[in-house]
Amino acid sequence: MKLWTDNDGLNRLVEEFTVGNDPELDLKLVRYDCIGSIAHARTLHKAGILTKDEEGALVAELEAIMGLVEKGEFRISREQEDCHTAIEDHLTDKLGDAGKKLHTARSRNDQVLTALRLYYKEQLAGCRTTVETLIQRLSAFVDRFGTVALPGYTHTRKAMPSSVAMWGAAFIESMQDNLRVLDLAHELIDQSPAGTGAGYGVPIPIDRDFAARQLQFSRVQNSPVYAQLSRGKFESTILHALGLVLFDLNRMASDLILFSLPDIGFFQLPPELCTGSSIMPQKMNPDVLELMRASYHALAGYEQQVRATVANLITGYHRDFQLTKEPTMRGFETAFRTLEVACLVVEKLSVDPKRAKAGMTAELFATEEAYQLVREGIPFREAYRRISKKFKLDM
Amino acid sequence: MKLWTDNDGLNRLVEEFTVGNDPELDLKLVRYDCIGSIAHARTLHKAGILTKDEEGALVAELEAIMGLVEKGEFRISREQEDCHTAIEDHLTDKLGDAGKKLHTARSRNDQVLTALRLYYKEQLAGCRTTVETLIQRLSAFVDRFGTVALPGYTHTRKAMPSSVAMWGAAFIESMQDNLRVLDLAHELIDQSPAGTGAGYGVPIPIDRDFAARQLQFSRVQNSPVYAQLSRGKFESTILHALGLVLFDLNRMASDLILFSLPDIGFFQLPPELCTGSSIMPQKMNPDVLELMRASYHALAGYEQQVRATVANLITGYHRDFQLTKEPTMRGFETAFRTLEVACLVVEKLSVDPKRAKAGMTAELFATEEAYQLVREGIPFREAYRRISKKFKLDM
Amino acid sequence: MKLWTDNDGLNRLVEEFTVGNDPELDLKLVRYDCIGSIAHARTLHKAGILTKDEEGALVAELEAIMGLVEKGEFRISREQEDCHTAIEDHLTDKLGDAGKKLHTARSRNDQVLTALRLYYKEQLAGCRTTVETLIQRLSAFVDRFGTVALPGYTHTRKAMPSSVAMWGAAFIESMQDNLRVLDLAHELIDQSPAGTGAGYGVPIPIDRDFAARQLQFSRVQNSPVYAQLSRGKFESTILHALGLVLFDLNRMASDLILFSLPDIGFFQLPPELCTGSSIMPQKMNPDVLELMRASYHALAGYEQQVRATVANLITGYHRDFQLTKEPTMRGFETAFRTLEVACLVVEKLSVDPKRAKAGMTAELFATEEAYQLVREGIPFREAYRRISKKFKLDM
Amino acid sequence: MKLWTDNDGLNRLVEEFTVGNDPELDLKLVRYDCIGSIAHARTLHKAGILTKDEEGALVAELEAIMGLVEKGEFRISREQEDCHTAIEDHLTDKLGDAGKKLHTARSRNDQVLTALRLYYKEQLAGCRTTVETLIQRLSAFVDRFGTVALPGYTHTRKAMPSSVAMWGAAFIESMQDNLRVLDLAHELIDQSPAGTGAGYGVPIPIDRDFAARQLQFSRVQNSPVYAQLSRGKFESTILHALGLVLFDLNRMASDLILFSLPDIGFFQLPPELCTGSSIMPQKMNPDVLELMRASYHALAGYEQQVRATVANLITGYHRDFQLTKEPTMRGFETAFRTLEVACLVVEKLSVDPKRAKAGMTAELFATEEAYQLVREGIPFREAYRRISKKFKLDM
Repeated sequence: MKLWTDNDGLNRLVEEFTVGNDPELDLKLVRYDCIGSIAHARTLHKAGILTKDEEGALVAELEAIMGLVEKGEFRISREQEDCHTAIEDHLTDKLGDAGKKLHTARSRNDQVLTALRLYYKEQLAGCRTTVETLIQRLSAFVDRFGTVALPGYTHTRKAMPSSVAMWGAAFIESMQDNLRVLDLAHELIDQSPAGTGAGYGVPIPIDRDFAARQLQFSRVQNSPVYAQLSRGKFESTILHALGLVLFDLNRMASDLILFSLPDIGFFQLPPELCTGSSIMPQKMNPDVLELMRASYHALAGYEQQVRATVANLITGYHRDFQLTKEPTMRGFETAFRTLEVACLVVEKLSVDPKRAKAGMTAELFATEEAYQLVREGIPFREAYRRISKKFKLDM
Repeated sequence: MKLWTDNDGLNRLVEEFTVGNDPELDLKLVRYDCIGSIAHARTLHKAGILTKDEEGALVAELEAIMGLVEKGEFRISREQEDCHTAIEDHLTDKLGDAGKKLHTARSRNDQVLTALRLYYKEQLAGCRTTVETLIQRLSAFVDRFGTVALPGYTHTRKAMPSSVAMWGAAFIESMQDNLRVLDLAHELIDQSPAGTGAGYGVPIPIDRDFAARQLQFSRVQNSPVYAQLSRGKFESTILHALGLVLFDLNRMASDLILFSLPDIGFFQLPPELCTGSSIMPQKMNPDVLELMRASYHALAGYEQQVRATVANLITGYHRDFQLTKEPTMRGFETAFRTLEVACLVVEKLSVDPKRAKAGMTAELFATEEAYQLVREGIPFREAYRRISKKFKLDM
Repeated sequence: MKLWTDNDGLNRLVEEFTVGNDPELDLKLVRYDCIGSIAHARTLHKAGILTKDEEGALVAELEAIMGLVEKGEFRISREQEDCHTAIEDHLTDKLGDAGKKLHTARSRNDQVLTALRLYYKEQLAGCRTTVETLIQRLSAFVDRFGTVALPGYTHTRKAMPSSVAMWGAAFIESMQDNLRVLDLAHELIDQSPAGTGAGYGVPIPIDRDFAARQLQFSRVQNSPVYAQLSRGKFESTILHALGLVLFDLNRMASDLILFSLPDIGFFQLPPELCTGSSIMPQKMNPDVLELMRASYHALAGYEQQVRATVANLITGYHRDFQLTKEPTMRGFETAFRTLEVACLVVEKLSVDPKRAKAGMTAELFATEEAYQLVREGIPFREAYRRISKKFKLDM
Repeated sequence: MKLWTDNDGLNRLVEEFTVGNDPELDLKLVRYDCIGSIAHARTLHKAGILTKDEEGALVAELEAIMGLVEKGEFRISREQEDCHTAIEDHLTDKLGDAGKKLHTARSRNDQVLTALRLYYKEQLAGCRTTVETLIQRLSAFVDRFGTVALPGYTHTRKAMPSSVAMWGAAFIESMQDNLRVLDLAHELIDQSPAGTGAGYGVPIPIDRDFAARQLQFSRVQNSPVYAQLSRGKFESTILHALGLVLFDLNRMASDLILFSLPDIGFFQLPPELCTGSSIMPQKMNPDVLELMRASYHALAGYEQQVRATVANLITGYHRDFQLTKEPTMRGFETAFRTLEVACLVVEKLSVDPKRAKAGMTAELFATEEAYQLVREGIPFREAYRRISKKFKLDM
């Protein structure tokens, strides 16, 4: 192993270590940093720091950058490290002093927070919409197959009669509760960090309410120290909310994998959602469902990374926080992709009424038999004992 | 090692393994199971299954049990396993058939869910109140010392001027946001599982709305399958909410440990919150703060246990769920105790204005110096370069 | 909520918070602290600090304490906080100055480390023995049922022919590898921290090699700073090793739960390892296996607590470390109890040859059919396509 | 949101979901899959399945692919999904039937396991070497500055005299123990899965010992079921071992960040390892150390993902396993990069003897003062009380 002793090598290694994946990740953030910078230009104009002309030129150029992003033509070099420097370079290059002035009354710290929250809000909105689509797909599935009776399981054992409607309703109701948690995550991040500077405010008075309105945040996050304290914390709540969604999909996938087992067969997976084996010619494997199940754990690991990274530190920004960005962004991607696939699975899923009917064996009705005795006046515990005896003898 | 081959040994080992700590843990749940059972007795009477007399006798006896609990006189034996059997035994013993009938139209599964949610609601309310107390203590602390200027740190390095008021306000605002998350956790669990049976409903029609009102739940959790699906899920949201509170305390403790370091000394810890060393006679250690910091990780570990336990399983109850009870209950205890100690710490904490003043060294004002140049018309990036040169030369 | 403003209340709250569960937990450590103190008495005598008489008196009294522990007659009060103070109090009470002198040339920090490692070594040895017993039970199980053919599954789908022998051999081989990891954990902790004081050595020269030999440690942990740095770290390796064992049991339990499903029935669980339902009279639930499966996650959560607690801290002891004790001790208990139950399960488990035979359906032999074509000279990918067509048409 | 209802959209979404990052990740695995395939070609020739010519052609072509990889000219398309199909396509394209025959007597499952283990072994060896380099750097650092006395801290408070030598020795000794754990991880994975097929062996007899020798594995992993059971398990041990290394670096970084604080200044960071601030002209921030500290948590999160993904599943391959690949590979990258940076940090680090000397204040010698009294015959507990009084009065 060659470990750098010359300065060039050192610089390369340090650069690689500190920059990490930012140039690539930040391509998704350029748009949001532009929106944040447009609001900042307007706020600086209002504070008398930028002239109307400077504001106009900056806004126009930032919108031009957003256009480049749309067309995939905006680049972030490794030397620039992140989208913020790339944008600043671009502005200074095009506009000279006006570009330099844009960094007045803000810090990289509140700039990053602002861009991230705008990005989070849009991502959360996208996830919310996909959860709503999933609820619709589940409702349509229940409309199609709801009346089919299914065995209900406890302890991975047949327990009592259930139905496709009961199964589907569980996920619909759970997803509706998930929307509450997604909304709470949205509520937390929907406060403006703009103007908190490096975590201790900025020495020039700017109108933070005005900035917040420009950015369409519902409220201002007043304490600059809190703005930094909430880094990693808000991200953990976002990932928790997404985690609840993926947890339900994990359980749904577990059901579908088991109950589409050829020995059981209540559910039927469409062939286009299955894959074959490289060695076994007969196989139709539920790979899509397995990855849907596993995605939950990827997300939970991202949350873990975020939470542990920011603990045991004093207040104020630390570079450690940078390592909360990638897991959060990947968390969104994982959640979004898994949700889309879940919509597809539910759309394509079907039920085999014959196999379901064949599964409705006598033991499922043992509780009802006991309750029949209850209706005849026998205390439940006594009825239970009688029916229990009957079924255990049968086994 | 002797491994049991006789049946008695087997029974003892299996019993120990399956019962676990339940008899001890469940002492805290007896009260809630009684409340749940009173509501169930009334619901069964409404359904015509219990006579008015039976209902009255059951309610009276359940209230008597709650009295015994209050006095510390209710016992759960290992054979009974948990509070539910202990209560059922007690009722059957006192009331005969009426006691047996109480188990009609419910299952151990929905009974446990009901008791746990009642317990969670009360615990969450207690935590909420303590967070509010903490906010008051922080406000009083800011009233006392808020005007004292403090160095603001980034990267564990002096950065810009801050103040005790700015520091305190961060935790106040953050705790106010935490209340939103605690309220969301409350909103999730505030739905009645009573009547969902073993996860597939009960074969006897009972009035679930009536039961929910008796139990003071805001709404009914309709899907019986969802009632079971939410086991572990709701607990994870509770622990997440508590975790946010303890995360703030973790960061607060980190601040106080560092800034009360004799070399720095902005904050002063009262001696009654410090402990000595067994070998070093001079030491005054911030043990209370260190445990306050560490408690966050205990809680995060409990959440981890809960989340991982319930994943990769099909829907419906599994005995695995039992292992979500202890971490959740211990999570509440950890959160509650840490919050109480935090209230005490903030109450007893003081600030040393001399040390704080001494800490306000010139470098903290470098940004302001740069901004002075900005006010004189120099673009920020240019001003930055000039001041930077001055300070780097000084070092 | 009443929050203490009087000093008594404060003291009670602080005491409760800092002492935690130590008086209860430490009952298991008294024995090991006595062994550590006996070695220390001998080391101090060798260093000329204790007379022969003092050493003798201390050793005798410490052995007397170990006798009390055996009989369950040694007590730790909450005021004493932990076993170390309780033992010191006892010695000073009985022996006066000699008792006080025992704390020469050591600190609570190295004393705790020493006692914990002695405890860990014994616990690890116990787990090792139980893993060996489990391997024997698995071998006996393979001897009894190994020749029975079983379907081998991939993707929770029938894949290729397997057998009870192949299934059992996997866990035997895996447990043998686990022994390697347990041995590595043992190797790490088998180094003596005695004499490292509070983490910076002791100002009186003592013979650390002699102390290590007395304590039956294989080597001396030289650096006192490392002795403290390894707190939490060694515990995480212990819990990792135990976690591998419980991971295998998690997978084994998952197999047994599925393959003893009445619809499949390859494995038969003895009724004494199953439990009934409170509402469903027909049920025989695999609760023991479900708790065996879930125990893995309890352990993983303990490891998580330990690891996160000790990170982001400077070197040297912190009171945070105290919160690594309980999860480690509970980790051992969880691992030990689960292993014992696993031994029992494997002993009592049986195989239903008829159901297994019925499970050996044609699709399992598709790969062999393809290989038959390979033997006839057809390239594998071609043979695969032909057989695949045949089976997919059948479906 | 548009959710695909046409089959093309479906196919694209399913492909994206199932393929994930494999084409990119797998570029690092092509080399190892070629090595695995060369060994398999030789094993098939030995078994009489391939002719000498076919073997030769395959080996030559696989070596050619390794050459392409070296030059960055080997491509994996998204349709090919992973390196295994890309290689198979290439071989079939070049060699026709011989290429197709190579898949005889193996499955994608054992092929992936083989390639991954070869990759792991090389990565582990690289990490081992870098740990050794770090140990050398630490030794050189101790040689340069070891005699400088430093305050030793407990509870983030000055405790007793320490030194640069004592500090450095801790990390050296700890890294030496880490080598033991890395070696254990190597020992676990150094067993050949080749020939285990899809997890139930292959129907054609091949010489697994021969294959293992070709692949330079020390032993054969006998049980095919265990080969699949160890997926995720071995990865967790690898990540645990890397985690111990990064844990030490986390603690080292924490020390360096605090003790290079201008108020303390024992350690001096070279400017090339520090970065400035976007708003504060005076700042020199220890970003490199902060990222070194945070990297530990990234790694721990990867381990978490791996462990949780593979639990609660029956034995046999599941597609979920695919999601263990990326976290493991990223874990290696994180560990390797952080280690390299740590080597650099230790190389460039210096000590400020004046600041260190100034830090050696009287309180550090309180324990020694007490021991002076012990030497004069006063029991330690008594001496402690006297000195304690003196220092507490001073405060």
